[in-house]
Amino acid sequence: MGRIEEIWNGDRLIQDFGMKLLEAREGYARVSVKVEDRFLNAHSIGHGVLLFAAADAAFALSVNAAVDAVGVQWSLNIIRAAKPGEEIVGESRVFHRGRQSMVCELTVTGEDGRLLLRGQSTAMPVSRAVYAEKSPGRKAT
Amino acid sequence: MGRIEEIWNGDRLIQDFGMKLLEAREGYARVSVKVEDRFLNAHSIGHGVLLFAAADAAFALSVNAAVDAVGVQWSLNIIRAAKPGEEIVGESRVFHRGRQSMVCELTVTGEDGRLLLRGQSTAMPVSRAVYAEKSPGRKAT
Amino acid sequence: MGRIEEIWNGDRLIQDFGMKLLEAREGYARVSVKVEDRFLNAHSIGHGVLLFAAADAAFALSVNAAVDAVGVQWSLNIIRAAKPGEEIVGESRVFHRGRQSMVCELTVTGEDGRLLLRGQSTAMPVSRAVYAEKSPGRKAT
Amino acid sequence: MGRIEEIWNGDRLIQDFGMKLLEAREGYARVSVKVEDRFLNAHSIGHGVLLFAAADAAFALSVNAAVDAVGVQWSLNIIRAAKPGEEIVGESRVFHRGRQSMVCELTVTGEDGRLLLRGQSTAMPVSRAVYAEKSPGRKAT
Repeated sequence: MGRIEEIWNGDRLIQDFGMKLLEAREGYARVSVKVEDRFLNAHSIGHGVLLFAAADAAFALSVNAAVDAVGVQWSLNIIRAAKPGEEIVGESRVFHRGRQSMVCELTVTGEDGRLLLRGQSTAMPVSRAVYAEKSPGRKAT
Repeated sequence: MGRIEEIWNGDRLIQDFGMKLLEAREGYARVSVKVEDRFLNAHSIGHGVLLFAAADAAFALSVNAAVDAVGVQWSLNIIRAAKPGEEIVGESRVFHRGRQSMVCELTVTGEDGRLLLRGQSTAMPVSRAVYAEKSPGRKAT
Repeated sequence: MGRIEEIWNGDRLIQDFGMKLLEAREGYARVSVKVEDRFLNAHSIGHGVLLFAAADAAFALSVNAAVDAVGVQWSLNIIRAAKPGEEIVGESRVFHRGRQSMVCELTVTGEDGRLLLRGQSTAMPVSRAVYAEKSPGRKAT
Repeated sequence: MGRIEEIWNGDRLIQDFGMKLLEAREGYARVSVKVEDRFLNAHSIGHGVLLFAAADAAFALSVNAAVDAVGVQWSLNIIRAAKPGEEIVGESRVFHRGRQSMVCELTVTGEDGRLLLRGQSTAMPVSRAVYAEKSPGRKAT
């Protein structure tokens, strides 16, 4: 099983949220998730947590496609509401891949292509051995 | 029913995640949530989305306790992993309450008090009437 | 005198830094500044403050070209060093213009086009009258 | 000459801005700077760049007091204006010191103690040898 499948299938929250893997390769990933009733906030719009989840799942795939990495920082603006029932798309594009850090552009868009969330996130590569032994932080996801 | 209860009970995701309301008043809120199996990532530790959810629920309560507000920006570092089965605590403290914006300190801590997440978030107050009519953004949650 | 000129000429720091205005219109601006010796850090590379200044000047112009606005939040990654003597370019593009907030993509690039800084910033529109009277925050610059 | 003095004296921008070193030790630093006329924006208040500079100088000292580190991410809210002529104070406190990253709380306050800026920043430790040879990023400053 490839790295992508391993992360995707092993991630209980991604599975529980019913996410769909649309595309994932080194440096880029795209996933979708439906705004089900259980993901609504008190104003009956899609919860910010769902938007974060869509962006974060794409982030994890885009950085872990090639190397093991831990997500360390997320900055994001939520600018529009997700509508009940629509399928939203989370995207991550690695725009800097350094020896010590990877930085990504994150976006979440609605079914009609309108921008809902935009942000930036940072991950650090770690070796599997190091991670297993010393647990320096957490895996990106 | 007070404002806090209205938000808490009406928020489907908060209910679905099984969160507990520990404290909520104007300018401060604290919630907890258990790291159930469905909230684990591919490395069998608590998912970043769960940590974000705990912080965001506290954020929403702390800013909406007094006025209707929309969350617009979140910046956060995740620095340690949440362990399977532990009860984590999300906290939000409003440290700036301006006419146009409110800014909060967010933290998530583990059962033993170790710091898991720390961040800062920004909300903007809106009138209910304006929100219902024009939907300028989204409610904080 | 137009709004752009008013901001540009009235900004003492922009003038002191010797910035050049390359382009400024509603929703977009681009400025440049030379990495002079006085802008070096202890490792003899361009100071992070200079990179922030280039991005921030572009931010202020892009949001103030049409309406008075105050900058409230900045999130940025610095990913490469600016070299002594090179002319760096700061750019801001408004990707969300709402009634209550404007959100921008910020970049700073080196003379050879390599990406030095990338970030996101948030401004809130204010009326001049309100600003003068109540000083709710600060102008974006 | 100690590490702190080396960074402080060698930093041309810190010297040019006329900053004062109030306190610096492993994990904490505090500096001050006067809001001179050259640091005003078009609205005759202290420039956001000056506030960033005060926070960033403290950040650099707090993380470099013990090990060489590069600043990689900054997130900050500016919530009040600095007044012409006042002496503002920038502070950085390292609240997480991991093997791969250090995370700091940044604040800038006015002469009367009012909060002007609050944020969070991330640095990564590097060996001096690695830095000199491969220039993986930039030093925190």
